[in-house]
Amino acid sequence: MANQLKLIFLGGVGEIGKNMTALEYGDTLIVIDGGMSFPDPETMPGIDVIIPDYEYLLKNKHKLKAIFVTHGHEDHIGGLPYLLRDVPTPVYGSNIAMAFLEHKIKKNKFKEAKTNVVKDGEIIEVGPFKVEFVRVTHSIAGAYAISITTPKGVIFFTGDFKIDHTPVDGRKIDLARIAEIGTKGVLLMLQESTNVERRGYSMSESKVGESLDNLFNENRGSRIIVATFASNIHRVQQIINCAIKYGRKVAFSGRSMLNTVEIAQKIKELKIPEDRIVDIEKISQVPYDRLCIIATGTQGEPESALTRMSQDEFKRVAICETDTVILSASPIPGNERPIYQVINNLCKKGAKVVYEALSEVHASGHAYQEELKMMLALVRPRYFIPVHGEYRHLKKHAELAEKMGILRANVLIPELGFCVSVSKAGLKQLPTVKSGSVFLVGDTESEAEDMQIRKHLAEEGIVIALVTVSASGKPQGELDIITKGAVIPDNVIQELKDAIQYKLAGGEYRELNQEARQKLIRKTMSKIFYNKMKRCPIIMPIIIEE
Amino acid sequence: MANQLKLIFLGGVGEIGKNMTALEYGDTLIVIDGGMSFPDPETMPGIDVIIPDYEYLLKNKHKLKAIFVTHGHEDHIGGLPYLLRDVPTPVYGSNIAMAFLEHKIKKNKFKEAKTNVVKDGEIIEVGPFKVEFVRVTHSIAGAYAISITTPKGVIFFTGDFKIDHTPVDGRKIDLARIAEIGTKGVLLMLQESTNVERRGYSMSESKVGESLDNLFNENRGSRIIVATFASNIHRVQQIINCAIKYGRKVAFSGRSMLNTVEIAQKIKELKIPEDRIVDIEKISQVPYDRLCIIATGTQGEPESALTRMSQDEFKRVAICETDTVILSASPIPGNERPIYQVINNLCKKGAKVVYEALSEVHASGHAYQEELKMMLALVRPRYFIPVHGEYRHLKKHAELAEKMGILRANVLIPELGFCVSVSKAGLKQLPTVKSGSVFLVGDTESEAEDMQIRKHLAEEGIVIALVTVSASGKPQGELDIITKGAVIPDNVIQELKDAIQYKLAGGEYRELNQEARQKLIRKTMSKIFYNKMKRCPIIMPIIIEE
Repeated sequence: MANQLKLIFLGGVGEIGKNMTALEYGDTLIVIDGGMSFPDPETMPGIDVIIPDYEYLLKNKHKLKAIFVTHGHEDHIGGLPYLLRDVPTPVYGSNIAMAFLEHKIKKNKFKEAKTNVVKDGEIIEVGPFKVEFVRVTHSIAGAYAISITTPKGVIFFTGDFKIDHTPVDGRKIDLARIAEIGTKGVLLMLQESTNVERRGYSMSESKVGESLDNLFNENRGSRIIVATFASNIHRVQQIINCAIKYGRKVAFSGRSMLNTVEIAQKIKELKIPEDRIVDIEKISQVPYDRLCIIATGTQGEPESALTRMSQDEFKRVAICETDTVILSASPIPGNERPIYQVINNLCKKGAKVVYEALSEVHASGHAYQEELKMMLALVRPRYFIPVHGEYRHLKKHAELAEKMGILRANVLIPELGFCVSVSKAGLKQLPTVKSGSVFLVGDTESEAEDMQIRKHLAEEGIVIALVTVSASGKPQGELDIITKGAVIPDNVIQELKDAIQYKLAGGEYRELNQEARQKLIRKTMSKIFYNKMKRCPIIMPIIIEE
Repeated sequence: MANQLKLIFLGGVGEIGKNMTALEYGDTLIVIDGGMSFPDPETMPGIDVIIPDYEYLLKNKHKLKAIFVTHGHEDHIGGLPYLLRDVPTPVYGSNIAMAFLEHKIKKNKFKEAKTNVVKDGEIIEVGPFKVEFVRVTHSIAGAYAISITTPKGVIFFTGDFKIDHTPVDGRKIDLARIAEIGTKGVLLMLQESTNVERRGYSMSESKVGESLDNLFNENRGSRIIVATFASNIHRVQQIINCAIKYGRKVAFSGRSMLNTVEIAQKIKELKIPEDRIVDIEKISQVPYDRLCIIATGTQGEPESALTRMSQDEFKRVAICETDTVILSASPIPGNERPIYQVINNLCKKGAKVVYEALSEVHASGHAYQEELKMMLALVRPRYFIPVHGEYRHLKKHAELAEKMGILRANVLIPELGFCVSVSKAGLKQLPTVKSGSVFLVGDTESEAEDMQIRKHLAEEGIVIALVTVSASGKPQGELDIITKGAVIPDNVIQELKDAIQYKLAGGEYRELNQEARQKLIRKTMSKIFYNKMKRCPIIMPIIIEE
């Protein structure tokens, strides 16, 4: 039997974040991207990061030949340090993506990885695959679509992209090459779905520059503080350009901003004359209306520079009425409350605060409907798989592809763990592979059960019943009810004690083993909690036998 | 000294929800609205509802003469059952607001309150106050602005409103009367700020009816399920009208939907022929394309009808490809994740899902910028106080009022607990009164500290060290480390045990009292957690002396 070409979805489908796709033919396995995602603090309390379950790659590590990275965002590279720790593998990507990855590996104190910087249009051959990096525009420099020539035909991964005809660095999306690839024939295209619900075209990044220029012009008398994503180098460059144009010095604040700027300067993706930079520790030497601070904290992160400024906890910057604060970003869904808290606090201190709801200070990095259609029109694939989105995005994207003339039978909506055989004859679903989320607390995996317990603790608190009994089961001394976080009126506490004492004195108790005794006490207590308060705190009976 | 007219802000300023304002003159105290708000599950785990701290009203209960309600939404009436339980007081408001309030009181098993239904334009005299109910349009029937003639001049509360020229029940906002009140002279106006960031005019509620009509027309072959806010009677009426027009029977689902429909039918705010209603238990008797289910669950609430349908946990409704599900509402910020989870699950089952991002199936009930300006232009107050919003909204609203010609010095941005003397001479801030949030678990108040502990438990879990010692302090038997929710590698557990044993064996330990011994063990453990894992779980040493 001839080899099958298998496409395996290990992340990024049916969810936002931790994108990871594998491609396998014979004894060659390659991976496109390996991201992480951030937890929803409500449903995943105490979790630091989430990475894909890549057990499939570990099981097939003898086949794993290379990892290809579309761009350097966390949701595309954040899982790689762990995978590379477990299976050292050559990685290919843009200078900025590789620099970010190396930095992450160093920060995690993992051993160095073999990274390889590619150029626009470069082709890497690995076993039966020819992997071409095709320049696209996105909210990070050095973003690529990846076109892979396989024994079965060409597979085109758009990666994250937008069609920006006026990018900040002038390096436009290579539409001509994309059209050429399309004309030569593409078997299958996988396109990102983030903004499939948005009509029209996304705004060009350089339009944000114009808005920023206006704001710098209007607020000549203010100190200007701009918060943005550190990884959006072009945004940072545009802010720096405005600062220089209006005679300001620039200070960077926030650890990730400082790291990113250092990395980006080193690889010459960010240009700033040394004499325009002032150390954040020395900003008091610069007149406030000659200063621009570029900071982290667009998502209301508790430890970020902007959040600490808003709470008067940032030593060098006391926010006041002569401050103009610009949040050059949009809220990631779920972060609205902390972000608006930061904005409210800044407003209360008298600062003028400019954010996306009020002004065009942010542009999305992801293609809107018309751009997605444009890409489909250029690539003209026979088969189509929407990726990078929740199910509703993927479904909407499938409908959009059908409207663009792709046969319904030739579109597949993938789910996590899907393994699809790809050939000219069609997409064929094979048995799914193990997949899912690995929840990390620091570097340690947290079982889903621990997370459930923490969630339960958050809602109900914990009640410990400390019971001392003699070997024969006779209660000794006082019965203690200790609570943490549980709200229990005094009369219920007394009722609990009475009910436990009653059970301890009963004949049933004495005949039970230790485990059954705990169970009996737990049951007795939970009944009272439910009947009296309709609550169910975590109950932990501790029985001490003297 | 002559009497002062005092305006006291007990809720709804610097926050969304739990609106409550008091007005005091001599020995008469009246209250406008008494709302509740829902907790942010991330920062307030385990809390059911939040009500205003109304200690000021309790302290002055001998003066409290009446409560006036602008409309029947939870954030305007939800706190009243508690206040009325503590201080029985006559309440005035629209038929629907009073019916909703009575229902809430009954549900809480509090004693009955003295409610009074007012008519459009009715004036209630209480001590020195003449309180006029002026009809406005909003996302609930029976909404009023309240104009109060006081010894110092007229104070105009807009309440929540929009300017809808084509409301579903034809009862338009009484712009003529508002203009007349303005012409006679208004000393102070308090206007809601919810949508102050939105440009232009809000969409009319009847436009939603047109969109719904189109959807019913396009999906004649489907079962149609529409989720909406139960309290939006006009929306429910429009859905019913569509169902009848397209030959469908209507079933209601979800406890609050059933309650609301029953109440609204009783007071004739909702009109539906009896023969068009089908009990949700009997929908299998109706062909699926002749059925319309109106359900709760627009916010992804775990127990709501729509959420349960999306999870296959709703006995009578199995979602499938012949279903069209319409979410006729918009996400309340912070609820995005659960809502999109519901949408994703519905999509996965093959249903066509229509929501605000895709279609005009919802209209806001709150005035946009141009409507706020219109109201300011009609009322033309001398003084202005923006209310009902976070600080950023209030600030933006203050700027808008200034643009409308109100002097900057005549605009005040209130904060919780502000007490303001109002007179022709100006707004003068008096000492603030006690105010804030009361967090309820069931009917029991939860201390902020309990909430903090629960939050801490959610992030870190709890670790219990169970130590048995002889009276002299000598360790007895095995030392036990019990964890709930905390993620701790085995080697750290062993290290904890060794360190505690070491401390127990030391001379220092024996000389300490019980409390200091616990403290020593806690310190020993937390040091290890921090050094080895950069974590700080809640630590509870339990020392048993034999």
